[in-house]
Amino acid sequence: MVCAALAMRAHEEVSFLHANYGQRTQNRELKSFQAICDFYRPTIRKEVDITWFSEIGGSALTDNSLKIRDYESSDLVPNTYVPFRNANLICAAVSWAEVWAASAIYIGAVEADSSGYPDCRKVFFKDMQAVIDSGTLDRTKIKLLTPLIDLSKAEIIRLGHELGAPFELSWSCYRNDDLACGTCDSCVLRLRAFSEAGLKDPIPYLER
Amino acid sequence: MVCAALAMRAHEEVSFLHANYGQRTQNRELKSFQAICDFYRPTIRKEVDITWFSEIGGSALTDNSLKIRDYESSDLVPNTYVPFRNANLICAAVSWAEVWAASAIYIGAVEADSSGYPDCRKVFFKDMQAVIDSGTLDRTKIKLLTPLIDLSKAEIIRLGHELGAPFELSWSCYRNDDLACGTCDSCVLRLRAFSEAGLKDPIPYLER
Repeated sequence: MVCAALAMRAHEEVSFLHANYGQRTQNRELKSFQAICDFYRPTIRKEVDITWFSEIGGSALTDNSLKIRDYESSDLVPNTYVPFRNANLICAAVSWAEVWAASAIYIGAVEADSSGYPDCRKVFFKDMQAVIDSGTLDRTKIKLLTPLIDLSKAEIIRLGHELGAPFELSWSCYRNDDLACGTCDSCVLRLRAFSEAGLKDPIPYLER
Repeated sequence: MVCAALAMRAHEEVSFLHANYGQRTQNRELKSFQAICDFYRPTIRKEVDITWFSEIGGSALTDNSLKIRDYESSDLVPNTYVPFRNANLICAAVSWAEVWAASAIYIGAVEADSSGYPDCRKVFFKDMQAVIDSGTLDRTKIKLLTPLIDLSKAEIIRLGHELGAPFELSWSCYRNDDLACGTCDSCVLRLRAFSEAGLKDPIPYLER
């Protein structure tokens, strides 16, 4: 959402693309997407169905037989890693961008303060840019932009706050649809970031 | 199919992945996929639904409002180009391959004798390999193989013939499901290749 706010500030026309990939909180994330679209009013709002992800398993986000663990500080990639997810998201976006003749794709990935997912590393996005350049028509010129990649999550919260991003409409929890759990990786990193930024997270959390 | 025959010869275990991407001949291609699976008996046979492609338009293969033109020799990329299709296919395959712990992905793309699609160029697959390496887990080692990339279509027919590939089960026509049209790019290049290889194409064509 903060990335979308940056794109809205930088361009006359912006379209929003949302992926339903069979994640546990798919319905909640879609609701957030729609609310954020109502707020920013992009030129085009589009959902893409890549729910085949829930068939492959291998990730606790898309496979209900795997448990989403509470946050633990570790160098290991957690089981919420969805195999090659960001590559699939970006490739879908490139197909649309080529037809829409868009000049750039924004994605809000973060390297430093993420969970060690390989497809959040800067080198991955650099390599992806090469694929976009070689795999599309010669007239197509799409820049893959990751404006948040070097920021900490606390810096992203501060930036979103400055840009007036509607944090109350966003959703990060891996587990729940109604009250965020507060203990999964995504909640813990989010809450810590709000705390470091000296701001209050406006979404509702489970009482603990 | 010839690429699958090569993979079957090179590995103990091979799985086949088929994409339904909303192409006109989707049902016919799926029927071919199933028949080829019955012939080769892969370890896993899997269909992936990426029919969102038919929503973006921009290609005569997936957008029924665009006409599939007869073959013309030209340096222009024809309107059957599906934007960034091969990248999406490969990324889906990588997600599965990572979960299956597969060592390689085979794709039967051809550069020299193709229709000028950017995502059939060798440089595209080289760049894609880099993305696979940087965007997956460190323990994941997947080689993207394009064993047909430098062959002419006639050489591919000869190779398939040597390998005993069941050409009668394959389908290439862009337009039709029952009798191949014989005049679209895909039919013309296929027929020319069989002719150059001195073999008869066993699939049925429209009388002309």
